[in-house]
Order: sequence, then C-alpha cells, then structure tokens
Amino acid sequence: MSLDLQGQLAAVARKVDPVIKSLVEEEKEIEVLYEASKHLIDAGGKRLRPFLVLKSCEIVGGKEDDAIQLAAAIELLHTFTLIHDDIMDEDEKRRGVPSVHALWGKPMAITAGDLLFAKVYDSVIRCASPKHVAYRRVLKALSVITDAAVSICRGQTLDMLFASMEEISEEQYLRMISGKTASLLKASSQSGAIFGGGTASQVKLIGEFANYCGLAFQIVDDVLGLTADEEVIGKPVGSDIRDGKKTIVIVHALNKANREQRQLILSTLGKIESPPSRIEEVIQTVKSLESINYALSKAKDFIDKAKAQLSPFPASPAKDALLELSNFLVSRRY
Amino acid sequence: MSLDLQGQLAAVARKVDPVIKSLVEEEKEIEVLYEASKHLIDAGGKRLRPFLVLKSCEIVGGKEDDAIQLAAAIELLHTFTLIHDDIMDEDEKRRGVPSVHALWGKPMAITAGDLLFAKVYDSVIRCASPKHVAYRRVLKALSVITDAAVSICRGQTLDMLFASMEEISEEQYLRMISGKTASLLKASSQSGAIFGGGTASQVKLIGEFANYCGLAFQIVDDVLGLTADEEVIGKPVGSDIRDGKKTIVIVHALNKANREQRQLILSTLGKIESPPSRIEEVIQTVKSLESINYALSKAKDFIDKAKAQLSPFPASPAKDALLELSNFLVSRRY
Repeated sequence: MSLDLQGQLAAVARKVDPVIKSLVEEEKEIEVLYEASKHLIDAGGKRLRPFLVLKSCEIVGGKEDDAIQLAAAIELLHTFTLIHDDIMDEDEKRRGVPSVHALWGKPMAITAGDLLFAKVYDSVIRCASPKHVAYRRVLKALSVITDAAVSICRGQTLDMLFASMEEISEEQYLRMISGKTASLLKASSQSGAIFGGGTASQVKLIGEFANYCGLAFQIVDDVLGLTADEEVIGKPVGSDIRDGKKTIVIVHALNKANREQRQLILSTLGKIESPPSRIEEVIQTVKSLESINYALSKAKDFIDKAKAQLSPFPASPAKDALLELSNFLVSRRY
Repeated sequence: MSLDLQGQLAAVARKVDPVIKSLVEEEKEIEVLYEASKHLIDAGGKRLRPFLVLKSCEIVGGKEDDAIQLAAAIELLHTFTLIHDDIMDEDEKRRGVPSVHALWGKPMAITAGDLLFAKVYDSVIRCASPKHVAYRRVLKALSVITDAAVSICRGQTLDMLFASMEEISEEQYLRMISGKTASLLKASSQSGAIFGGGTASQVKLIGEFANYCGLAFQIVDDVLGLTADEEVIGKPVGSDIRDGKKTIVIVHALNKANREQRQLILSTLGKIESPPSRIEEVIQTVKSLESINYALSKAKDFIDKAKAQLSPFPASPAKDALLELSNFLVSRRY
C-alpha cells in the first residue's frame, strides 16, 4: 500500500472509529452484548467501506463531515455480516483473534449481529434532519443499504449451496461474490454519494466503480486465503478449502484439472479434518494449473473496469484516493 | 375469543397475508432461502401485530389501506425474531411444525432471519412516496421499529443471562419481557398510528396501550407454557423449564418456596434431560404456591392499565377492536 493511501485510511479510521464506538454505546445490564458486538471492530480491519463512503461523498462535491455517521453505520453492517458468517462457517478466528461465537457462544453472537444490524438503521435514521441530511436522501441511502443486506443474504445462500455442488461455473461464482462482497462496497459508495448530493448518474457510476472493486477484492481475498501467511490474514491458511468453498481459484482449477488432480481437489474440499500436508498438496496443484494467476488477472480486469467508471469525474483528491484504493486492492498482500 | 374478534383477526390475516407473501417473493436460484423464511408464516400465527398496526392506524383517523404493507412488514420482523430465537433456545418445534433450523440447519436459519430483517426495512421504505406515505412519517415509523429491534436484542440478552442466575427479581423479569415481547407490540401500534397521521400524544398513548398488552401477553404465554396442551400451544409443555427460563411463575415460586421446593425447582430448571414426571412435579409445586394465579392477576392488572390509555380516544370500531383484543389477551387459552 502506498504511504499516501495508508495515511488516508488511517485518517478515515481516526475520524470514524470514535463514531462507531458512540453508536454502540454500552448499556449497563447487558454490557456483555455490547462487548461481543464491538469485539471485531476493536480487533482491527482496514475500514475500506467507511473510506468508500467518505470519498464517494466528496467526489460528488459533498462534505466529508456529513457522511461520517453513515460511514460508521456501514462498518457496523460489515461487522454484523462477519459475526454471522463466522457462526455459519464455524470459523474460530478472524482478524487474528477468536471469533465472537468462539468467545461468547453462538446465541450471544447471533444476538450481537442482530443488534449491529438494528444499529445500522438507528444510526442512519438519526442523520435525518432538515439541518443535516434531507429526509429524502436518508431514505434513498437506507434503500441502497437494505438492497445490499438482501444481496448479502443471497450471496451467503449461494455460497452454502455451492459447497455441496461439484460443478460451479465462473458465472455462478461471480453472482455469489457479487452478493456476498461487492454489494456492500457498492452500497457504501452509493450511499456516500447520495449523502453528498450526487446526481442519479453519479450515484450509479460510483456504485459500479465500487461493485467492480468488490469483485476484485473478493477474488484477491480468495487467493490470499491460499497463499498468504496465517499471521498476515488473521485466519488459518486453507480454511476456505476445509470449508469446501468454491472460490474462483477452485472453480478454475476443477475446470482445467485432469482426472487425478480433480479427484485430489474434490476429496479435500469441505473436509474439516484435512491435514496441512493435504491442503498444501491442493494449493500446489491449483498453482500448477495456473489458477492463481488466472484469478489475479481476472481481478485486474475488474479493477480496470472500475477505474473506467470514474473517468467522467473531474480530477480531485477524492478521485485520486479512490483510484489509489483500487490499485491497492489488486496489489495487496493482506 | 369472541366471534367478533376472531372474525376481525381473520379479516386482518386475509388482507395482510397476501402482502406478506409478496414481500418475500422467491428468487429462482435461492428458493430454499425463501422457503425457510416463509416457513413459520405459512405455519400459522394469530397476526396480532398486524392487527395492532391496522387498528392503531384507524383509531387516529387513518385509512387501513395505508398501513397494510407496514402491517405485513411488522409480521416479518416478528418472524425473524422467532427464527433466531428458536436457534438460540435450540427449540425444535414452533406453531406445531418443526422450527426453521430443524428443517434447514442453523446456517440457513440464521440467513433466513437476516433476510426477513432486511425485508422489513425494504417493505417500509417502499411505502414512502409523496402520494402514499410522507417521507417524514416513514422515517418516524422506521425509527420506532428500529428501537423495538434493539429492545428485542436487549430482552433476548437478559433472557440468556437470567438463565444462569439463581435469583431474579420481578422487576428484572419485567424489563426482560418488556424488551423481548412488549417492545414489538408497542412499535406495531406506534408505527400504525404514525402512518395514520396520529399526533405525538396519540402515538404515545397507543404505544403505551400496546406495551401493557405485550407485558400481559408474555405473562399469559409463560403460564400457558406450563398449563396448556402441547397440541394447543404448538410446542412441548414445560420447554421453558427445560430451557431454564426465568418466567414470572418461576420467579414468584422461587420467592415463596420452602427450602425443599426451591431445591426441586432449581435442580430441574435448565436441565434438558428432565423427564416429563419431573416437569409435572415442578408444575404442581408452582401451582401449590399460587404462582400461576399470581401471574394471571398481574396480567390482568396490566390489561387494566392498557385499557386506561385508550380512554382519551372517542368511541370507534377500531377502539372497540383494540379493547376486545386486550380482553382476549388475558382470557386466551392458546
């Protein structure tokens, strides 16, 4: 990551994190619920979505300050999905710390996710005032956020269904990550631009930009899950393979594999008890099939498409920041 | 239930149910998620909350038609809480049918609940239009619905915390059911009155009416869980005892019990494997301690308070319907 982008992400975190905390303020009798809800927020995260909200607000001429609470709310939505995802996938680690259900049990983790989901709406609705953000804009932002929440459920369901299907096409995979990942990045940018007073066509363009970024982001995430160190990604290497996830790497590899390679991959996918050596064998196989390079080139294509969406916008610091973010998404190692 | 109330509830269901179905319209690739989401709606339910929405809209002079989609949305919110509750309590039956997670597994059930939660907002936001319901009213309704969702999480957390605590006061119990149950009834009436164009003081009164109804409703529910037939309530008798729930009956009984009775109750609460004979022994004990009568008299007090809130409203069919509903809530046997 360039020093400049790193600095800008850190600046976003400095502004948004205190607001996030204020949105999930503890209540005495049920402190434990709030601790569980905030656990992953405190554990880190790059605050990419708040960054998208703020820069998308600015690129259409809005003031960053008007969108900070929205940016915080979007991070809550993201955190809600992480908490429920970890329960569903039975993942015990996230961001280098135990997942919420690993610490507080599944019932509390389900409730913590539900609370954050409610707090998203609470926070955005509170932005509405004749002096602050107009009612109509708030309702529009709520609408794109809600569309994203529905899409996330759709993507999550496809992800679960695909785990038990042998043959998945690249098109199916893309529909799945479009729901699971890209939709929230899209809603981040759209809602930011709506709060900033963007025109319908600006909101559409910036939404498409973020959507393509989201597709690339997830593809790179799938690759890093196979190639990065556990310490760097904060969860065990190959956990996607153990969970039986049909990532683009696996989809491509299954498509190109010979009978023996195919057999190796299919008999390892979704087997929780697969030993590290077996996982490593699968990773070497998908590498030999060029599946990782294929995935990365696909991610690069999406970033090119993303950047093209920004061409109608005149030069500005916000535009530069968004372009730099898109570069980072394909070059990142974590 | 009087024939008239029965007829009015059925009329509400006839109007609202098709709208509920239209709000959760199937998508081809993920039919299973929609089936899971609609399962409990199809299995029955009295549609008390839609009834409250519509009658509260009418009592302030609004038109029922304006609030039908809102009423449907509130039933979705209720259904979402049932699905997640059943996962958390590991209840395998609800409304006489297997619970959602019993049929589709916990990951799908979590997602089905999340989808319904998102669809609540989707449905209410869609009501906003200059011709239909003003933006400001929609935002206000969203705000009371969101407050209820937060309260439900609070109540759910207290319920879980209390299960592992020996001593619970009646006050604590009431705070718990105020969140878990009463808050959504309150939001139903408040949002209905907001959509109907009620004044702030009307919205407050009708909200208090529903809040007291909700407290009485939950107390009667707790009693029925001990005294009604499994076929009538749709779930095993005494499951609250097996789940270790601190209902008002248990709270009262523990307060009045001698050492031996106390020992019997505490050693049975929360033991999933308790045989029916042991559950029956506990039920007989709480009956002998007058705890069931105490609970029912408490419920009656709340209904009296509820009715008092309606006195400022002039006579109307909607007022009659709400009063009749409140009578039913304490006299019901199912």
